[in-house]
Amino acid sequence: MNKNIQLPLRGIIPPLVTPLLDNDTLDKEGLERLIEYTLSGGVHGIFILGTTGEFAGLSYRLRRELITHTCRQVNSRVPVLVGITDSSCIESVNLANYAAECGADAVVLAPPYYFTITQTEFLEYLKRIMIQIPLPLFLYNIPSYTKIMLAPETVRLAAEIPTIVGIKDSSSDLVYLKQVQYALRDKKDFTFLVGPEEFMAEFVLTGGHGGVSGGANMFPKLFVNLYDAAVNRDFDEIVFLQKKVMQISTTIYNVGQYGSSYLKGLKCALSIMGICGDFMAEPFYRFNKVERKKIEEALNAMEI
Amino acid sequence: MNKNIQLPLRGIIPPLVTPLLDNDTLDKEGLERLIEYTLSGGVHGIFILGTTGEFAGLSYRLRRELITHTCRQVNSRVPVLVGITDSSCIESVNLANYAAECGADAVVLAPPYYFTITQTEFLEYLKRIMIQIPLPLFLYNIPSYTKIMLAPETVRLAAEIPTIVGIKDSSSDLVYLKQVQYALRDKKDFTFLVGPEEFMAEFVLTGGHGGVSGGANMFPKLFVNLYDAAVNRDFDEIVFLQKKVMQISTTIYNVGQYGSSYLKGLKCALSIMGICGDFMAEPFYRFNKVERKKIEEALNAMEI
Amino acid sequence: MNKNIQLPLRGIIPPLVTPLLDNDTLDKEGLERLIEYTLSGGVHGIFILGTTGEFAGLSYRLRRELITHTCRQVNSRVPVLVGITDSSCIESVNLANYAAECGADAVVLAPPYYFTITQTEFLEYLKRIMIQIPLPLFLYNIPSYTKIMLAPETVRLAAEIPTIVGIKDSSSDLVYLKQVQYALRDKKDFTFLVGPEEFMAEFVLTGGHGGVSGGANMFPKLFVNLYDAAVNRDFDEIVFLQKKVMQISTTIYNVGQYGSSYLKGLKCALSIMGICGDFMAEPFYRFNKVERKKIEEALNAMEI
Amino acid sequence: MNKNIQLPLRGIIPPLVTPLLDNDTLDKEGLERLIEYTLSGGVHGIFILGTTGEFAGLSYRLRRELITHTCRQVNSRVPVLVGITDSSCIESVNLANYAAECGADAVVLAPPYYFTITQTEFLEYLKRIMIQIPLPLFLYNIPSYTKIMLAPETVRLAAEIPTIVGIKDSSSDLVYLKQVQYALRDKKDFTFLVGPEEFMAEFVLTGGHGGVSGGANMFPKLFVNLYDAAVNRDFDEIVFLQKKVMQISTTIYNVGQYGSSYLKGLKCALSIMGICGDFMAEPFYRFNKVERKKIEEALNAMEI
Repeated sequence: MNKNIQLPLRGIIPPLVTPLLDNDTLDKEGLERLIEYTLSGGVHGIFILGTTGEFAGLSYRLRRELITHTCRQVNSRVPVLVGITDSSCIESVNLANYAAECGADAVVLAPPYYFTITQTEFLEYLKRIMIQIPLPLFLYNIPSYTKIMLAPETVRLAAEIPTIVGIKDSSSDLVYLKQVQYALRDKKDFTFLVGPEEFMAEFVLTGGHGGVSGGANMFPKLFVNLYDAAVNRDFDEIVFLQKKVMQISTTIYNVGQYGSSYLKGLKCALSIMGICGDFMAEPFYRFNKVERKKIEEALNAMEI
Repeated sequence: MNKNIQLPLRGIIPPLVTPLLDNDTLDKEGLERLIEYTLSGGVHGIFILGTTGEFAGLSYRLRRELITHTCRQVNSRVPVLVGITDSSCIESVNLANYAAECGADAVVLAPPYYFTITQTEFLEYLKRIMIQIPLPLFLYNIPSYTKIMLAPETVRLAAEIPTIVGIKDSSSDLVYLKQVQYALRDKKDFTFLVGPEEFMAEFVLTGGHGGVSGGANMFPKLFVNLYDAAVNRDFDEIVFLQKKVMQISTTIYNVGQYGSSYLKGLKCALSIMGICGDFMAEPFYRFNKVERKKIEEALNAMEI
Repeated sequence: MNKNIQLPLRGIIPPLVTPLLDNDTLDKEGLERLIEYTLSGGVHGIFILGTTGEFAGLSYRLRRELITHTCRQVNSRVPVLVGITDSSCIESVNLANYAAECGADAVVLAPPYYFTITQTEFLEYLKRIMIQIPLPLFLYNIPSYTKIMLAPETVRLAAEIPTIVGIKDSSSDLVYLKQVQYALRDKKDFTFLVGPEEFMAEFVLTGGHGGVSGGANMFPKLFVNLYDAAVNRDFDEIVFLQKKVMQISTTIYNVGQYGSSYLKGLKCALSIMGICGDFMAEPFYRFNKVERKKIEEALNAMEI
Repeated sequence: MNKNIQLPLRGIIPPLVTPLLDNDTLDKEGLERLIEYTLSGGVHGIFILGTTGEFAGLSYRLRRELITHTCRQVNSRVPVLVGITDSSCIESVNLANYAAECGADAVVLAPPYYFTITQTEFLEYLKRIMIQIPLPLFLYNIPSYTKIMLAPETVRLAAEIPTIVGIKDSSSDLVYLKQVQYALRDKKDFTFLVGPEEFMAEFVLTGGHGGVSGGANMFPKLFVNLYDAAVNRDFDEIVFLQKKVMQISTTIYNVGQYGSSYLKGLKCALSIMGICGDFMAEPFYRFNKVERKKIEEALNAMEI
């Protein structure tokens, strides 16, 4: 298995936004700036083509271009994880192979997301697809989008496949996470990463390995410091930094009334910060001037 | 606009299953047989790459191959509708252009289905995508898979775009359908098609134009006759034929406990009938021997 | 069994609103007017303590008072059905016994609605409670409120209990209704009533027995006429009357953005019509002046 | 305000099961034993008529009897909290008044749970009901049963009512809990209690005040010790004790396939331990012999 990734994978692995110039044109310079900016903040890995990366809205051509440039730019300084989630198994396998060729370190896979499938069907699917995947794989549980919550027993059975090395959970359900951790308590190398940044510190305090924190696109150091504080059980620091995380969550991610406010706010903020543009892939569209003004104010209030 | 399609589109338009030899190989002979079999049953159109066609699980290469062969085989005898639903707008547009080149008559589009979007976001998305679509388009409402119910007001506003010519609804919610029909009561040419075959006749009796009935893959004549009976308000015939439709619904579609039993049962039955194989695209898998035996018995009991 | 109710029960059985003077005071005169008004419109039964009757918000004292006065006022002119749905089985049985003493003809029961229960648990519950219920009982399927959809097989098994004589369905799902009807096709006396008035006519056209139509509080004759048109398969009349039903549905029931707009609009309209006040039980509250103005305009536009 | 309750309320407050002899008969001796057993384990309060107490299935007569006996037995040794959640506001107020007369210290209220209401409607309802409630009140967020998630902003606005003193959350959603805590960060006396015991320790580690832990019916000391370990940031102890909590969660609460397995398992275990019988209120029913055997084995494996 890959030498560049140590298991369990620990730390902050930002789910990169995908900088775009227009609907099907990668913003390569923006991508370079974003990678250098987050790496300079001390992040422990890079995850592209996740939900935050708007993977589902991108063409396959652009997904490949993104993989190529990211792997080249990161150049093995940290592990690169590549999302291969797709409603078509064949396209997932194609992307995984391409990621391997480009030198990526691992792939990340949520269940195929058009049909509603059962635990058994997902396990059977995993067994068949894993034979064709040339890289270590992290499961991705995100039931609000895929319409299936990976049962703790499903994760336990999946983890018997040697190349399945961890799980990223975006369910927000800590009972669930505790059950998954308990089900896999004997798998010492199995990685547990949490999506929602609001309780990344709590999760690391009690057995989690790190966070796939979207906010680390904007504030990599903040999240790396919070991760370190959790590892060191430095509660004063945790309390101090978590207030900023909650400030982000309730301001930058909270403009407008739509579920997409997180994605739009994040990309808008990166644009204001001069890191990359705020062009979004369909079906979303960038914030208007009024909304952008609010993001500006929210950024100004951040004191970071 | 296309000459081969008359609006409103009326009748039975089967959502064709996609015959496969293996995970990425089209069963061309099965496809030919299936097309000839349904056409010989009198169906009024052909719809490929719908949910019943497992579109979401197919590679793009195979989707194109399917479009090519279907258009060639049908050869303008009836309108061909092509599903272009995708989580990526670019891939939807690509498919639509390809379908137009191949001579398809219309396309069918459900909302992009990974992210959860609002009515407003869907309408904006429609306005932008419709400029790039070279064929008349039917909206496809299937909230259990796309996580959005197209509000009657959304459909009304969408119908102001001239090339949006109809809606196929698979919500099963007749209150909703009545509200959509009422909202569009002034659009005399707007087509209303219903997905679930269990109440196709009721729907046609009171203002609907037809059905995208999966069962018409197996029994095209049954559904064409039921449609005719509804048009003619022949209640004795409706009652007689609808019993067979309900028999299909509660036996062939009802083996196993999963949501996929409809798809698996349908393809298994077609295989038993010698029309095409029962290979299924990921994430599904064909019925085992015990389940196939049940489908055989269900078919034998059909008396058609 | 009761002589006053003929099975299957056919026709329009309005789910009466509960006229209130304040939060725990029955508006007896309003109730009398409402009963006389709907009876004079030709309705075939009266249903109190349903969802439209705000049963869940009423005290038990008031529920009994309502039963007493309704039975007395109706005085056996039509069957009286009494809702006994409750999260506590004991309170349901108490209400059923009280309804029997007052001379009611049947009771109506949805699953207990706090806990989430399974089909098996509901069936076991039914078997135990039915021993204690002294009147014929209609099942009430309303999954959006009770969090359980009564499976067709559950209804079939429930119907083996001789005193379970019918079902009122408010799921809006016509596939479901067709499946229930098919599952019970051998029970010739089993009553099928539909809640949503928007497709009452379709339902009666193809095997349904009638509707529990909330709009019949305001316009009893309209719904009785539509029912008759459906029985007589008079399609011109159906189309003519159904437009008015859809007009009600999209105007009077559609003021404000909340799920409660149906209940609030209905009671507001009855108040404007001088039949009873618009005081609502908690947790709801009557429409304000602006909203009331809209209801007035909607009523004026009705041409009935 | 009440002298017996110090705000914020801290510690383990078990949601007592309701010991029953039959469907409407309180097991008074079982109740006494259960109260003495949990108090001897060091719990910091007692909560009756919660979800674990099967409140929704009990008659009002029995609810009152339970309040009377609990207040008498506890006799002010710890605060007594009484659930007054009901679909009828009047019955909630009646129960609150009765609880005050009996000397209870606070009440606990979830939204009325039949109708689906909006945030605004709930806030209006709260304002009206709070005038009539003679005791401090804890909000109870349990969206899986009430069909409404109390928005952080709703909780913040509710907390402006002086007698609303805290919230018990059973959503399992830690992002949500963090948002509520952040929205109320200036209300130093506002109490945050968590329902799910699986992450009670995490919650106390980072700003939570305690847990309404169902398992404390069986193992009060375990949960009190875990609470203490969290307060003292004793991570070795937390890890050691939390394994036992997860063992309970995955064995005793996990027999059978139904959502009710928690309630049934808990009451069955208490019966095996000789504390009270396992009779359950409708719509549930006690475990059968096979299931009871599994609970016995799970208890034997607990090493407590």
